[in-house]
Amino acid sequence: MKQKTHDGAGADQALLADRLERFEKLALDLRNRDFLLTWEKSEDEVRGAVLLAECLKELHRAGRSLRIFDSGLAISIFRDQSTRTRFSFASAASALGLSLSELDEAKSQISHGETVRETVNMISFMAEVIGIRDDIYLGEGNRYMRRVAAALDEGFAAGLLPQRPAVINLQCDIDHPTQTLADLAHLQNRFGGLEKLRGRKFVISWAYSPSYGKPLSVPQGLIGLLTRFGLEVTLAHPEGYELLPEVVARARSQAEASGGSFTLGHDMSAAFAGADIVYAKSWAPLHIAARRTELLSAGDADGLKQLEAEGLAQNARHRDWECDEARMARTREGAALYMHCLPADISGVSCPAGEVSAGVFERCRLDTYREAGYKPFIIAALIFLTRVPEPQAALRRLIARREPRRR
Amino acid sequence: MKQKTHDGAGADQALLADRLERFEKLALDLRNRDFLLTWEKSEDEVRGAVLLAECLKELHRAGRSLRIFDSGLAISIFRDQSTRTRFSFASAASALGLSLSELDEAKSQISHGETVRETVNMISFMAEVIGIRDDIYLGEGNRYMRRVAAALDEGFAAGLLPQRPAVINLQCDIDHPTQTLADLAHLQNRFGGLEKLRGRKFVISWAYSPSYGKPLSVPQGLIGLLTRFGLEVTLAHPEGYELLPEVVARARSQAEASGGSFTLGHDMSAAFAGADIVYAKSWAPLHIAARRTELLSAGDADGLKQLEAEGLAQNARHRDWECDEARMARTREGAALYMHCLPADISGVSCPAGEVSAGVFERCRLDTYREAGYKPFIIAALIFLTRVPEPQAALRRLIARREPRRR
Amino acid sequence: MKQKTHDGAGADQALLADRLERFEKLALDLRNRDFLLTWEKSEDEVRGAVLLAECLKELHRAGRSLRIFDSGLAISIFRDQSTRTRFSFASAASALGLSLSELDEAKSQISHGETVRETVNMISFMAEVIGIRDDIYLGEGNRYMRRVAAALDEGFAAGLLPQRPAVINLQCDIDHPTQTLADLAHLQNRFGGLEKLRGRKFVISWAYSPSYGKPLSVPQGLIGLLTRFGLEVTLAHPEGYELLPEVVARARSQAEASGGSFTLGHDMSAAFAGADIVYAKSWAPLHIAARRTELLSAGDADGLKQLEAEGLAQNARHRDWECDEARMARTREGAALYMHCLPADISGVSCPAGEVSAGVFERCRLDTYREAGYKPFIIAALIFLTRVPEPQAALRRLIARREPRRR
Repeated sequence: MKQKTHDGAGADQALLADRLERFEKLALDLRNRDFLLTWEKSEDEVRGAVLLAECLKELHRAGRSLRIFDSGLAISIFRDQSTRTRFSFASAASALGLSLSELDEAKSQISHGETVRETVNMISFMAEVIGIRDDIYLGEGNRYMRRVAAALDEGFAAGLLPQRPAVINLQCDIDHPTQTLADLAHLQNRFGGLEKLRGRKFVISWAYSPSYGKPLSVPQGLIGLLTRFGLEVTLAHPEGYELLPEVVARARSQAEASGGSFTLGHDMSAAFAGADIVYAKSWAPLHIAARRTELLSAGDADGLKQLEAEGLAQNARHRDWECDEARMARTREGAALYMHCLPADISGVSCPAGEVSAGVFERCRLDTYREAGYKPFIIAALIFLTRVPEPQAALRRLIARREPRRR
Repeated sequence: MKQKTHDGAGADQALLADRLERFEKLALDLRNRDFLLTWEKSEDEVRGAVLLAECLKELHRAGRSLRIFDSGLAISIFRDQSTRTRFSFASAASALGLSLSELDEAKSQISHGETVRETVNMISFMAEVIGIRDDIYLGEGNRYMRRVAAALDEGFAAGLLPQRPAVINLQCDIDHPTQTLADLAHLQNRFGGLEKLRGRKFVISWAYSPSYGKPLSVPQGLIGLLTRFGLEVTLAHPEGYELLPEVVARARSQAEASGGSFTLGHDMSAAFAGADIVYAKSWAPLHIAARRTELLSAGDADGLKQLEAEGLAQNARHRDWECDEARMARTREGAALYMHCLPADISGVSCPAGEVSAGVFERCRLDTYREAGYKPFIIAALIFLTRVPEPQAALRRLIARREPRRR
Repeated sequence: MKQKTHDGAGADQALLADRLERFEKLALDLRNRDFLLTWEKSEDEVRGAVLLAECLKELHRAGRSLRIFDSGLAISIFRDQSTRTRFSFASAASALGLSLSELDEAKSQISHGETVRETVNMISFMAEVIGIRDDIYLGEGNRYMRRVAAALDEGFAAGLLPQRPAVINLQCDIDHPTQTLADLAHLQNRFGGLEKLRGRKFVISWAYSPSYGKPLSVPQGLIGLLTRFGLEVTLAHPEGYELLPEVVARARSQAEASGGSFTLGHDMSAAFAGADIVYAKSWAPLHIAARRTELLSAGDADGLKQLEAEGLAQNARHRDWECDEARMARTREGAALYMHCLPADISGVSCPAGEVSAGVFERCRLDTYREAGYKPFIIAALIFLTRVPEPQAALRRLIARREPRRR
């Protein structure tokens, strides 16, 4: 039970100096903006988020204070269950000095379209940031975030709000930027820099799951982000599990621009061949997700039951899409980095058959926790970047401050 | 999406100096008291709350820290659904440096009479303030707050509590002081000072709603507060929608004492004639509210259903009590200030027919948000005034401190 | 309503100096450990918790800041309803400067065994402490806490967690350390020091309740703690209400080692004879508690109903086990200190017949509140001791800091 802690150790000054130097060279224009889709942000801005998160993580590891606010609200709106993102957001808020306030829609009935602009202003008089998770309704989640943003714009323009809180996407129907940026930070750490990712083969593959309605945001977010950094990105899924065409088109063009590649295939084993990194997870077929949105909106319980049966039946035809030892053996030197946003459906552990075999998952489990460990710092970095004027000078000051978290 | 913020701007020193000067002249005796009904407080104390809220709002607008506590609990007890008051209280707590703890009665069963005194002491060992909303049960809400206050008195007198937390009424069956003081702050800002309200015609009118059990606390609170400041206060409602007689009697005598007037009428259009300010909202008939309390206490679901039908039928006879363009045209220069505590029942928007026409509301909507924007600062001011020794010196120090909210 | 506060008064320097001096002589090794059972801790460590709690309470009473963190999470997991422990934990977190985050298992489904190690790591990247209440399932609660602790060990050892958060038992199936340590602090205060408890007769007696499933953790915790301090501990209960044999065995051997005694009897009145302190509360028969765990796990609602009937029938045979005036009259000079962890089942008040007569309870009521008032400070002390390096120097610094809680 007795454990030593790292907090006697000082911060890694070389790492901080290196990251700060790179960070200071970037052109950043995130202040007073929202963070809704990674591809709306410049490559410098994406790099900035990852570098800043790395610095915050190292400072935190060394027992330093990250506090930049003395008060103010970080508001979260979770229109879906969540533990890890909820705690990541709460952690980031606490570290920066903000008070968390969760808007419980069951209690507040913000969901009716007309009331969004009112409610959003009512809760924001002392807010710095609003984090939103809304990933269940295809075609709705990101739109809802923009409706919130528009309401804030109106309130700020009219002088009602003393400042314009940032809206941060904690997962929508299109993208999951805090996850994919955490993934990118993990990759950078593992391979020794974003530059070292160039030419690496990254496979994002559909995998079987005994649940039918998982969002498309993670695979979409991954191809929408990683194709910008020169990776050889392969997307694999059974026919019928296509992602949103506009995101796939964007992945293609970005891959071309970055000097990487984007390949789409329908064979999981073939995709794994020679991979440096594999990310195997389930998602819903587009047509199922779209109908689910309609049925949920209509409150059609019978329809939903029927849809679930249909979705599960469709999934069941691809039960062999499992990340197992045989497929892992086909990756580069049989040792690809396995990634997952968690929780995974683990065959024989959390379900009879799932996305990943028990052996593969257990071998890689701690790595997936490590991957997740970047998320609180990515969220803190996004709050920092969207709130702080001159974030580069501010990071320099923060590092120089050497203030301990505990006194 | 890109917005400039105001936080580069300094605080308005002239405004702060003026408000501070006025604030320092007041006789205040709010320290270690509760804030349950505005009419229990002196005129100086009411003015003090509004002046202080104005200063806190300006300091916050200019990016200054309002923090006066380094720790401690701000406890909220919401015996009724709420979004805006909940967030206003959370915002005030955060700004002052307190941690919010919500007592969920469903989880804690405080509601049984005998346990109030115990539970209240159990949660208060490190509390600074307890904000309570209890507006559903006529004859019960304010009484409950006083029961909480008595329990705190006992615990403090016995030396169990190191300090006596303040109880702040976040809406009861009689008054809604944080709303009406926010309204008063909004009026002061709009008309250029409390003195400028003298002689203005303020109309609080019942309005139609397709819901039947709205509390009486807002209209009661308004006539109980505004009649003290020399306004010409007109209360209008259909027969059968009388307010509590003791509050009406108080309004009459206060109007006389202040040099204003108090008029009661039963014609919405007539009431609007020449008005400077109109506040049109629905409330329940007294006899319905009283029977509702009985039925809720008895858990009589059938009785409640029948009562609702009866209440709605009674409301439906006054469907023409809508704040519409024709009535607004009758106000002074057709340009009265429209006020509402929100959310409003907007005809054709949130309901087929309601308290206000869509056109009137849309024109005045941002003004109602502005009105609401005072509430977090009124709550912060009440916490400040009930906790801080020598609040006038403390405000002077706070202004001089010039500490930024973000470092 | 107007009350003076104590906060003008300075801290009691003599008391602080005395407690600090004693505290500095102790051998403490709690840093980076968990606090799960008092008997896993040395006598010095138990004394240290009580002395530190006393100092923190006095500093707080005098309006001083206890803040030692500038940010970080205090996570609570309540697998059972709670108000007082919930608020005690929230109070301690706020006082020390931590942000409270509650893990709602209904929302997060941590309960499935396999997911504990994952969820625990996911929420802990910025955590200082995890407080857990899990007292319903006999044989499960403490085991669950150790499973959480093991998951944290794994995450910390792998470098995933920058520090190893402390797990603090907020009540399990075996012990309730924050309650019993608060009880001990209350006893020390009442009798003038832990040394003065030597030879005092302490009675923990079963008492009748019209509810059937109360945990065994309080009586077990009391005999497991107080037998270490030379008290004459008497446990009384009807046949069939035995405590866990291993805890009773420990109480026997500890009593012998400490020079006190441990007596087990089956007659409430006899037990009360000559008592200095009486603690009368209900608990479930072991066999009922064990079957309840099975039935709850199996989700057997009918079985639970039947078990409840059986439990209540068994309790009803001992309805005369009430702490009443006649029994209190048998205690030393008829004036034993009455203790209870609250809420009590009070005959004629909260139930027709219960653990204590209305007269006895009302006479001792404020004393039970005083007893409860130690709990937030005990929790704060445990967080302090498990987190702070060199807690003795840290307490000296904290006392010398003289920082007011309000500025």
